[in-house]
Amino acid sequence: MNRRTILHIDSSARLARSHSRRLGRIFVDAWLAERGQDEVIYRDIGINPPPFMTQDWIAAAFTKPEARSDAMKQTLAYSDELIDEIERAEVIVLGAPMYNYNMPAALKAWFDQIARIGRTFSFDLARGDFPIEPILSGKTLVVVSSRGEFGFDGGVRQHMNALDMGISACSHYLGASSIHTISAEFEEFGGERRANSVEAAEIKARALANSLVSSLRQAA
Amino acid sequence: MNRRTILHIDSSARLARSHSRRLGRIFVDAWLAERGQDEVIYRDIGINPPPFMTQDWIAAAFTKPEARSDAMKQTLAYSDELIDEIERAEVIVLGAPMYNYNMPAALKAWFDQIARIGRTFSFDLARGDFPIEPILSGKTLVVVSSRGEFGFDGGVRQHMNALDMGISACSHYLGASSIHTISAEFEEFGGERRANSVEAAEIKARALANSLVSSLRQAA
Repeated sequence: MNRRTILHIDSSARLARSHSRRLGRIFVDAWLAERGQDEVIYRDIGINPPPFMTQDWIAAAFTKPEARSDAMKQTLAYSDELIDEIERAEVIVLGAPMYNYNMPAALKAWFDQIARIGRTFSFDLARGDFPIEPILSGKTLVVVSSRGEFGFDGGVRQHMNALDMGISACSHYLGASSIHTISAEFEEFGGERRANSVEAAEIKARALANSLVSSLRQAA
Repeated sequence: MNRRTILHIDSSARLARSHSRRLGRIFVDAWLAERGQDEVIYRDIGINPPPFMTQDWIAAAFTKPEARSDAMKQTLAYSDELIDEIERAEVIVLGAPMYNYNMPAALKAWFDQIARIGRTFSFDLARGDFPIEPILSGKTLVVVSSRGEFGFDGGVRQHMNALDMGISACSHYLGASSIHTISAEFEEFGGERRANSVEAAEIKARALANSLVSSLRQAA
């Protein structure tokens, strides 16, 4: 049947007027217009944020699965659920607005939940200075973002862009073999620059969906 | 009297075996050994994390103070409390362990609470492409950190260090005119490299406290 799964995550605290939410929807709608048979898993961590790290979580995660108590399993149940979603997906659409030059705390809480030894990475000191290896692979990561200012992608504010660096540094946990980033900029400036940036981002989101669907068709 | 205030923040989810907690304590203890008259404000956001951003918070923050409803004031009360602490402090000691190449979600939630128009930054489009200016100034920021791996400060993992970039990008909200970063590395590797790194960081934390106290003395 060749059915694919898209995991679509929103992390904006805004429901109305959220560019990252709209860009994600545009991508998914454009994808489904071509491949209506595909599955979309949707998770809204902007409205329902993951829990923060706790000492108990860390202890449970670093206990071997067969040695975990029922309480430990319970502590990790939500993390397991999030990772199950990542495992099932071939494409991950990550709504990631820039808040104070980095990801929203809710998105960071999500990454902290899905960075799990034995599930999304393995660790072996026999590998020397690079003991961490990803467990998942072959997925396409589509980051849809918004920025209040501009110049974060190779421009005057590149040195402040902890959002894309933070996502890129964690992308191995997701098994991302490619990352596409689409951003609407100039939100706080308004005017023509914002309007042009938003329009360009929406066009890119549609074009990327079509291009990825085409590659699937050619590979088939 | 010349009494100074240190704001000491911990964000580690760990109580036991936390390097960032211990390094922060070492700095503060060394400072107080020289200046016992100074005030320390302590806030533990690792154990009591700030709330996540919400649409209501954003709406309240962007409403002019005189136009805020009682509910809006309530929504911002915690943010006001955190910013009051920053305003009072001349030195901010930020316990910031690296979790998945970035700050803990709890620390990001703290930054999202303290980035406030009219309190920690002003915004004016008349300033052109750089409309944001800090309101606070002249503070010393001391970041005490730990990293599971190594090479994040100019080394092989510099390109993954979204923690220091994220703190640096937000340091204007804190009014930081200087940033000192002290890190214990190699946590996941154990052995001699870890032991040496931890020891060096502890020595640096004490030395930095003494050096900052000396500068105060010379300035007096």
